[in-house]
Amino acid sequence: MYRISFAGAGNVSSALCLAFSGAGHKIIQIASRNITVGKTLAQKVNAEWTGTLKFRDDPDFIIVAVSDNSLEDVLKRIDCSEKSILLHTAGSYGLEVFSGNFLKTGVLYPLQTFSKERNINFREVPFLIEASDNEVRNEIIKLAGILSGRVIDSDTQQRRMIHLAAVFACNFVNHMLALSGKIAGEGSFPFSILHPLIRETVCKALETDPVLSQTGPAVRNDFNTIGKHMDLLYFSPGMRILYKEITDSIIDFYRKNE
Amino acid sequence: MYRISFAGAGNVSSALCLAFSGAGHKIIQIASRNITVGKTLAQKVNAEWTGTLKFRDDPDFIIVAVSDNSLEDVLKRIDCSEKSILLHTAGSYGLEVFSGNFLKTGVLYPLQTFSKERNINFREVPFLIEASDNEVRNEIIKLAGILSGRVIDSDTQQRRMIHLAAVFACNFVNHMLALSGKIAGEGSFPFSILHPLIRETVCKALETDPVLSQTGPAVRNDFNTIGKHMDLLYFSPGMRILYKEITDSIIDFYRKNE
Repeated sequence: MYRISFAGAGNVSSALCLAFSGAGHKIIQIASRNITVGKTLAQKVNAEWTGTLKFRDDPDFIIVAVSDNSLEDVLKRIDCSEKSILLHTAGSYGLEVFSGNFLKTGVLYPLQTFSKERNINFREVPFLIEASDNEVRNEIIKLAGILSGRVIDSDTQQRRMIHLAAVFACNFVNHMLALSGKIAGEGSFPFSILHPLIRETVCKALETDPVLSQTGPAVRNDFNTIGKHMDLLYFSPGMRILYKEITDSIIDFYRKNE
Repeated sequence: MYRISFAGAGNVSSALCLAFSGAGHKIIQIASRNITVGKTLAQKVNAEWTGTLKFRDDPDFIIVAVSDNSLEDVLKRIDCSEKSILLHTAGSYGLEVFSGNFLKTGVLYPLQTFSKERNINFREVPFLIEASDNEVRNEIIKLAGILSGRVIDSDTQQRRMIHLAAVFACNFVNHMLALSGKIAGEGSFPFSILHPLIRETVCKALETDPVLSQTGPAVRNDFNTIGKHMDLLYFSPGMRILYKEITDSIIDFYRKNE
């Protein structure tokens, strides 16, 4: 049984904390600025909430899951035992973000999008890891292996590229769906009639290859339909620009692949 | 049992043709320019292939499923009985595209992305329909109801907006996945490690609302990570522009919704 503490009580921290606790490991402390959120999470896993970054009781791991923006600042202020392995969960940072005060450091980056109120099946989530030395690496592999069946050693540069790819595959995909929903509102039809189309689009792309499964006016160079769509988008100049840019990108992508 | 003929032997035509035939209806003729493709499809459903647009045997329906670009031209050249109901399957056209020669016309637009080699569960696919008169409408509702549990009456303007929304929800989503796959190639990691992330992104967006489920650097106004991603994209100036445009669109979208 590992003894784990957390800095941060956001979506990533919360998901990992509940998963490790559920797997029978002891959560000692949850450190967070937000008292309500931190205490609520701490209560769920029978841990202690703390408003400082001073960690007691020499935990095996301290997992720092805070927003990328505040990671450097939080790490600077952490006060913990030299015995603890200090991990961060940010896809776009490596080990350089840790100050020299810490002996055992590593990265534990779960490649998933987390939100409150949604349970994640961690067994399929790839955990990308990096460590300050081989001993620490082995410990991180054991820790990640508790939750996931896909623990992958990676260096910082590759993890950054994976993080970038994830922005396209997750955040940008989601934004396309949000914009589609906005058009649904504008056209007075329920977004839900698009659900079977969206499900098939994604199943097809993952079962074959998105490059091969592209359909629609852009890949057909159907400038007539594209022009009509641009006209329909007069209600939103921003979406009009985006429609044109993505359409040009599709045309360009398949011209080069010809 | 309906007697149905098709103009076109592409993805949409092929999916509908196989589905109607599978449901026990008689396919009479498949008209297509491409002999091999047309004959292959005709053989599968025990129909006749024809290279002309002259339809024999007074079918109940002639379904014209050709590319949007050539729809007008194909419709002009069709020679058929006045008894036949002539349907097109294009989301962005209405009844105006039919010339005055035809008495019974309509639209049968299945809101789905079709590709060869993939079976579609038609029961969940919304069929958006429009008809030249009420009698024809009732016939189209019966025809569509053979395959789908979601037959929806719509006018041309609304169907155009639905078609536009579908471009964002399907074609643009797929392109984001293709670009993500390109980054995977550039970063030498398998695209498949992103699959659980993509699945969760889409499940979450459809079960809640994509507007509420956005994550990532743009919605957090994390300009530090955004800047690093832009640097990583130096291998593709086009993707760099697109990253910036979509990021700006996300920032703008949530600023307005604040």
